[in-house]
Amino acid sequence: MTTAQHLDTLFELLRIPTISAQSQNDNDMHHACEWLHQRFTAIGFDSDILATAGHPLVYAECMSAGPDKTTILIYGHYDVQSPDPLEQWTSKPFEPEIRGNNVYCRGVADDKAQLYAWIAAVDDWATSGKSLPVNIKFLIEGEEEVGGDNLEKFIGQNQSLLKADICVISDSHCLSEEQPIIDYGLRGIIYTELHLASFARDVHSGIYGGNVFNPIQVLAEIIAKLKNDEHRISIPGFYDLVRQLTDVEQRELNESPFGVQQILSETGAKAVAGEPDFSVAARAGARPSLDVHGIWGGYSDEGTKTIIPASAHAKISMRLVPFQTAEEIFEKFEKYVRRLTPEGVDIDVQYLSGGEPILMDRYNHFFQKAERAYTSAFGKTPLYELSGGSIPVTAMFKTLLNLDCILMGYGLPDDGLHSPNEKMSISMFEKGIKTSTAFLAQFE
Amino acid sequence: MTTAQHLDTLFELLRIPTISAQSQNDNDMHHACEWLHQRFTAIGFDSDILATAGHPLVYAECMSAGPDKTTILIYGHYDVQSPDPLEQWTSKPFEPEIRGNNVYCRGVADDKAQLYAWIAAVDDWATSGKSLPVNIKFLIEGEEEVGGDNLEKFIGQNQSLLKADICVISDSHCLSEEQPIIDYGLRGIIYTELHLASFARDVHSGIYGGNVFNPIQVLAEIIAKLKNDEHRISIPGFYDLVRQLTDVEQRELNESPFGVQQILSETGAKAVAGEPDFSVAARAGARPSLDVHGIWGGYSDEGTKTIIPASAHAKISMRLVPFQTAEEIFEKFEKYVRRLTPEGVDIDVQYLSGGEPILMDRYNHFFQKAERAYTSAFGKTPLYELSGGSIPVTAMFKTLLNLDCILMGYGLPDDGLHSPNEKMSISMFEKGIKTSTAFLAQFE
Repeated sequence: MTTAQHLDTLFELLRIPTISAQSQNDNDMHHACEWLHQRFTAIGFDSDILATAGHPLVYAECMSAGPDKTTILIYGHYDVQSPDPLEQWTSKPFEPEIRGNNVYCRGVADDKAQLYAWIAAVDDWATSGKSLPVNIKFLIEGEEEVGGDNLEKFIGQNQSLLKADICVISDSHCLSEEQPIIDYGLRGIIYTELHLASFARDVHSGIYGGNVFNPIQVLAEIIAKLKNDEHRISIPGFYDLVRQLTDVEQRELNESPFGVQQILSETGAKAVAGEPDFSVAARAGARPSLDVHGIWGGYSDEGTKTIIPASAHAKISMRLVPFQTAEEIFEKFEKYVRRLTPEGVDIDVQYLSGGEPILMDRYNHFFQKAERAYTSAFGKTPLYELSGGSIPVTAMFKTLLNLDCILMGYGLPDDGLHSPNEKMSISMFEKGIKTSTAFLAQFE
Repeated sequence: MTTAQHLDTLFELLRIPTISAQSQNDNDMHHACEWLHQRFTAIGFDSDILATAGHPLVYAECMSAGPDKTTILIYGHYDVQSPDPLEQWTSKPFEPEIRGNNVYCRGVADDKAQLYAWIAAVDDWATSGKSLPVNIKFLIEGEEEVGGDNLEKFIGQNQSLLKADICVISDSHCLSEEQPIIDYGLRGIIYTELHLASFARDVHSGIYGGNVFNPIQVLAEIIAKLKNDEHRISIPGFYDLVRQLTDVEQRELNESPFGVQQILSETGAKAVAGEPDFSVAARAGARPSLDVHGIWGGYSDEGTKTIIPASAHAKISMRLVPFQTAEEIFEKFEKYVRRLTPEGVDIDVQYLSGGEPILMDRYNHFFQKAERAYTSAFGKTPLYELSGGSIPVTAMFKTLLNLDCILMGYGLPDDGLHSPNEKMSISMFEKGIKTSTAFLAQFE
């Protein structure tokens, strides 16, 4: 089939507003599962919609290659982020529109078109009349954007169903239209909340100002002490278990095209800031980081209110690299933060969620196959990259199934995931289908 | 009249929900003005309801003592704070209820009963048949709780109408039922907002974490650097103009009953914190202070969102003491905060409102008369105090009318101003009427 025909089919899926965070879209979630189920059935896969405690997932397999052949698990997700703020969209978020070389639609890059590149490749293979050279299992979930533990439970309870030799995930991006990337590592994460309290209720800043602990002041001082002036994280022992990079990795990071200019143009920032001893690419993937995602406390409406607030709050996460562990880092973080909190101020340190950092063996033959597939589709050898992001499912597969993942992204850095006017490049979609097809062909 | 009879009359005013911040209560504001107007007319005052660009005010005068006699301006306000959160009230906020020695109602202490103590005193004087020994002017506004500049405009445009020898304000509190206080100084204030921005929109913390300025981190570092480890404000030159205390003031502050225990019991705090070289009472009134009233930025809903937020914000005020000025301190604050902001992060430093610190000459004869009035009503000499709060109208009277104010509070520290279950002690109301009556009698 042509790319245009595949796009036409994909548009049907794009039009379903599969916003997993909003219960008003529950019917749309079922609708999308039904659509995927029919699609898989049409191309000859055994397919099932499987209930979880949350949104259902779709499992489909074609084991016709036989038990001696390699089994590939292809993971993806059909759910999307909310399209808010709606007024910033140029076209309707759930009515895919082609402008230039791009399709604009919520969820097109994250993850519907990237996932669909694999379905299209398999479809083309089926319609060609040739039998598939590998056994293929698809696992497509509906809660990637909202976290939760339903997928982890499902994987734990279905270890033999999901048994495979390798997992491929297309839910990331290349460096550019010309330069593919294979991620062989992902940062882990711990996501925490701090709650500080000084009083039972807000008190008057005129009467008590200068005599009591202001919890916002205390929280600000804690956050300020989480990093030193050189952007190094000050939590004692934080870097103890950080893996040393190999010479190859050092050279790759030094030569990486991910640099200052790319960050400035992608984010609109006027300056970069980070550990002075490390390159931008190293800071992005090979070094841990710490960010405050939200802070709140006291009065934030219009005008003035002269209170010393009773409490102050922040959401803080740390991205982890091998061989840091979520448990170890949370323990060090909590201990340090408690030490920084003055006597007389209450603090609650909460662990919201976490995932372990992942490092894949990039020298195994599956990676070499992915490399050759990219090279044939793009005409250029992919770069190997340590990704800054976290895909918790990779750690679940590793822990529960002892399964490695190859992250074969087909997106671009400026796709606007989670933002208004999310898009997917049509030529990248086409190259994605070609890469997926070439990857499967490696097993012939 | 008996205190019970005065209370009965006051209840009519208490029942009018004069919430100045909510336009739905505009009719109630007019209703309260009408009620005050009729009250003043009934006791023989010339009274008028005067329009402003906002809520109207009530002006009433009785100049029968004659041009050779002293003229006293009595200032008060009829507006109240919103009663939110409603569910924390034991009785209805606008249905005054007597429980024990207290009347519970929104606005009873702030400022209706304190103001009414003066109306009751004048009423008693009138019904006694004696002529008033002083000329009296009442100025009662309806925007004390919302700020704004309508009152200042009115004062500026009505300088001869408001001409007086002294102003008395009962909108503060005694130390206890037994120990009256006269405030002879008030802290000034500058109220500011900081807005920091790094990007046009939130960016992904996995991709960019470790490489960009997080505006919450920058804001926290700025706030942390506003004070040193000893709670001293670190803004260069901040203390340059702070007035030296006299030996008498030093002794009074050292002997002040306002101490650690009172702060702990009033606020529920577990510890006090402040400049180590100064007593609790000195920190409260004689030293400037700095507080963050609100902070916000990024994601604060349930769960996790892995963004580096585009912006971060805080509301910060400084309480000033003589001879600091609002303009001087804002200039120093802005300069310092800008210096702390790294290149590449945008900062907007806004001046929301301000008022100058005030110091009255406590050795003039009006203060001596107030001292004698309190002593006769309470059986105890009042303490002189530098108040930590700010009453901007005192600076307006000083600047526009060259008029000093005596702050003769009749409330108690635990009245719960701006909080649920605001109350006024009935015996304090009674002592307030006695003190006001005795003050007027000083001029016979």
